[in-house]
Amino acid sequence: MCRWLAYAGTPVLLDTVLYKPVHSLIDQSLHARMGVETTNGDGFGVGWYTTEDDTPAVFRDTGPAWSNRNLREIADHVRSPLFFAHIRASTGTPVQQTNCHPFRHGRWMWMHNGGITDFHRIRRDLALAVDPELFLDLEGSTDSEMMFYLALTFGLEQDPPGAVARMVGMVERTGHEHGVEFPLQMTVAVTDGEQVWAFRHSSQGASRSLYYSTQVEALRALHPDIEFLQEVSDETRLIVSEPLGDLPGAWNEVPESSYGVVRPGGDTLLSFAPQPV
Amino acid sequence: MCRWLAYAGTPVLLDTVLYKPVHSLIDQSLHARMGVETTNGDGFGVGWYTTEDDTPAVFRDTGPAWSNRNLREIADHVRSPLFFAHIRASTGTPVQQTNCHPFRHGRWMWMHNGGITDFHRIRRDLALAVDPELFLDLEGSTDSEMMFYLALTFGLEQDPPGAVARMVGMVERTGHEHGVEFPLQMTVAVTDGEQVWAFRHSSQGASRSLYYSTQVEALRALHPDIEFLQEVSDETRLIVSEPLGDLPGAWNEVPESSYGVVRPGGDTLLSFAPQPV
Amino acid sequence: MCRWLAYAGTPVLLDTVLYKPVHSLIDQSLHARMGVETTNGDGFGVGWYTTEDDTPAVFRDTGPAWSNRNLREIADHVRSPLFFAHIRASTGTPVQQTNCHPFRHGRWMWMHNGGITDFHRIRRDLALAVDPELFLDLEGSTDSEMMFYLALTFGLEQDPPGAVARMVGMVERTGHEHGVEFPLQMTVAVTDGEQVWAFRHSSQGASRSLYYSTQVEALRALHPDIEFLQEVSDETRLIVSEPLGDLPGAWNEVPESSYGVVRPGGDTLLSFAPQPV
Amino acid sequence: MCRWLAYAGTPVLLDTVLYKPVHSLIDQSLHARMGVETTNGDGFGVGWYTTEDDTPAVFRDTGPAWSNRNLREIADHVRSPLFFAHIRASTGTPVQQTNCHPFRHGRWMWMHNGGITDFHRIRRDLALAVDPELFLDLEGSTDSEMMFYLALTFGLEQDPPGAVARMVGMVERTGHEHGVEFPLQMTVAVTDGEQVWAFRHSSQGASRSLYYSTQVEALRALHPDIEFLQEVSDETRLIVSEPLGDLPGAWNEVPESSYGVVRPGGDTLLSFAPQPV
Repeated sequence: MCRWLAYAGTPVLLDTVLYKPVHSLIDQSLHARMGVETTNGDGFGVGWYTTEDDTPAVFRDTGPAWSNRNLREIADHVRSPLFFAHIRASTGTPVQQTNCHPFRHGRWMWMHNGGITDFHRIRRDLALAVDPELFLDLEGSTDSEMMFYLALTFGLEQDPPGAVARMVGMVERTGHEHGVEFPLQMTVAVTDGEQVWAFRHSSQGASRSLYYSTQVEALRALHPDIEFLQEVSDETRLIVSEPLGDLPGAWNEVPESSYGVVRPGGDTLLSFAPQPV
Repeated sequence: MCRWLAYAGTPVLLDTVLYKPVHSLIDQSLHARMGVETTNGDGFGVGWYTTEDDTPAVFRDTGPAWSNRNLREIADHVRSPLFFAHIRASTGTPVQQTNCHPFRHGRWMWMHNGGITDFHRIRRDLALAVDPELFLDLEGSTDSEMMFYLALTFGLEQDPPGAVARMVGMVERTGHEHGVEFPLQMTVAVTDGEQVWAFRHSSQGASRSLYYSTQVEALRALHPDIEFLQEVSDETRLIVSEPLGDLPGAWNEVPESSYGVVRPGGDTLLSFAPQPV
Repeated sequence: MCRWLAYAGTPVLLDTVLYKPVHSLIDQSLHARMGVETTNGDGFGVGWYTTEDDTPAVFRDTGPAWSNRNLREIADHVRSPLFFAHIRASTGTPVQQTNCHPFRHGRWMWMHNGGITDFHRIRRDLALAVDPELFLDLEGSTDSEMMFYLALTFGLEQDPPGAVARMVGMVERTGHEHGVEFPLQMTVAVTDGEQVWAFRHSSQGASRSLYYSTQVEALRALHPDIEFLQEVSDETRLIVSEPLGDLPGAWNEVPESSYGVVRPGGDTLLSFAPQPV
Repeated sequence: MCRWLAYAGTPVLLDTVLYKPVHSLIDQSLHARMGVETTNGDGFGVGWYTTEDDTPAVFRDTGPAWSNRNLREIADHVRSPLFFAHIRASTGTPVQQTNCHPFRHGRWMWMHNGGITDFHRIRRDLALAVDPELFLDLEGSTDSEMMFYLALTFGLEQDPPGAVARMVGMVERTGHEHGVEFPLQMTVAVTDGEQVWAFRHSSQGASRSLYYSTQVEALRALHPDIEFLQEVSDETRLIVSEPLGDLPGAWNEVPESSYGVVRPGGDTLLSFAPQPV
């Protein structure tokens, strides 16, 4: 439905990752290979941290990414050590800025690919489960933003994997109560500006694709001639809906029902299971 | 906050009413005289019925009305016996199509000028009061759309004045529960394509301005030289946030706490009071 | 590059042609089969005549057609005996309303699929060839609009086929002067509200696809069960970049280097050749 | 018609200048005091240099600045030592991104308030005077962009004041040839990323307002309690269409028919006269 990308590591111009690679995210807005739709033209967003900011900047717009000149300008002039980018293919909710990813709450950003089955029907029940204080800040009408606010309700800021597990448990229970067999399909990225968590899960056990980049050290050994790899730190990491570029050995699939944590000092990959709420 | 206009009578090109008058609605988007804001540039909408349609067409966009070329095209080429037009000055909710008036539900249209005080804080309680079946169709984030769905919940399609009275009663009670002294300020127009109801009310008893046009027969006597008046039927009527044009004797203020009904066979003006729910 | 459609005949809701068919024009905005690009998401336009108007209404916007709600509204509520519709895939010029087709001049409308090779380089020479009085009305920056104004300069309103032939001759000569081997690639539709002319030509003799619908009488005999065919007049005709729907026998290719004229009283198909200027 | 602002000095968040002051530029988009129009809602732009870039980033959009969330994001997160900002009130040319200021050419930026009288009629003659190589990059349809490309044609990159004087001379001569008494009205800012030139001129000798900020050293003596003044360098300077804030002694009018140069090492104010071409 959508495609997204999370970058963490040595500060780079957004362009380096968003436009430069052969099968870049912007190229995927017109020609996605692994998505349900080949076109992701229903809005886009980028969110980035700078070294001096407490909160990320979030730039979102409603047209296709491929023709957006302001996105090109930002990509050419903004440098960041940690950023999210997302291109949207709507599954029915309106094409409007408040429905574009990433979503932000304080220092936190969230983006999502997938969907809640029959969201239209269970939206009210989910909305009621959102903390009333947080409800005030719900602005759009997507399942993705609702999932974010549910995760915040369930303690995202204290325990991201636990909160996401509880959010998923809650969404699946509510879906089942409405007679939906497979209520959720998701790959989700979330960050507080220091760590990135990326989840792959679906009720049916057939989740959307998700990949993480090979350790830079290993890639350098494989491709000593690629300049970019000499310039970025060992801990630089990308997580993507589908591989960028065509570098052999560069991409690894995130296994079904698991999540990864990208953090200074060493990344980890763990299994994921919904938690009943 | 906003400005609006409702027309019912002899079919005319929208242009006749939207652009032609000296102080037209489109002029009011830049230079409103009686509003809280002089500029109403946060989106606009027109909704019109044609003789053969069951539901009205609704054209809404997010930029200012004064520079919108598509609105100009529609006004120049669409003829209708009953239409609504609205220009928006946002009181904080996002500038997006789903927040533009008029709102539509089946054959019904609704538009509003004013606001629910501290809507942000009481939005959740109001949302809970909307009929769960109707909740599915809530698309935007304005107080105006919420008021429409509450009125629908309270029986708008069977008894418009009663349903609006109950909606107001419910909003005022909820506001008071949250410590808001004067929860509501509104002029509202609603139609099923045959009749138009227009309400003027505010909790404080100091409502936004609202005017209705003098009976065509009387206007013709006053201004025998005005061609337009010869062409329209006796029952043609306009209701507006502020007078268009500068025709002496053409406009009458809708009294505080009252509502009018425009219908084939004779219009009426009645008093309005919130109804406890 | 782009896809377009021209309809002339019995007045129908635009929806009947724009959305209803299996492989409709709106579907082609996401999934064109015969175009250079599968996605046509860089703006769109519809232009329609009504019985009482002198000039057509033109509704154009910059986002993708597939998600545009106002286009849906217009298609659902506007009925016309003659209309153009166009979905755009930009070949480099900005995505803006003034670059969307159809273009209008008085009673005339023009739309185009294809392109002038290296237009960027020969644009100035072409602009100089436009009648200075007409130059005032050039608003956008596309090759398509320039071709329209050149055709107007060369007498479009008096002799459409001749003017288009001279425009093509002039563009090809100018291209050749700049060392361009194959300067032009085009399918063009033009109308004065009564007749429609549709041209297929390219300097290389390998033009973009173009189809016209089979005579209604013959189609009725082939498909007696299709209700729509019973309702439209014998002279109803569609010209399209690629076939809509999947009705066997419904579509015929316009031959290379030819043009058709759709008019009350009988259509014609003639050969086309550029005319030196 | 429009309002603009140029900042040069100690790097600041754009927000400090664009939103924070009492009568900020963003506030002027709704409530300009000195302009011909109080509302400047027909698009906007900001262009900024960063220390590491060769060319400025330019962010432009078509809606009003006051409700644009992406502008808010950029203002909150981008820091720059030299930036331009512009809010537009169209004098008739379309509201589209390519008509928004500032315009960019390589390292150079240009923005304008005012207009060429009867531009529609003399546009073609002016376009012909633009260097054919530069003509390729003309994207929009405004008089302002045309003035920029004429100035570039007349040597802007080598001699800014001379080139602007020749551009003005050429525009005034062309206007007079078409019978226009007072062909030009302008305040213009132009920069190469190191110096800023600001011009005030009109054919009639009654130019739009233009102000420059008092030397920081003097302002500090006047207002020792204002923290911002302690933080910026002595050479920090603002040039604006109308004063921001309400700091007594902070603003000085640029005299009629003169121009200022803001540069490291000392600013200058000189007289300006058109130069016949």
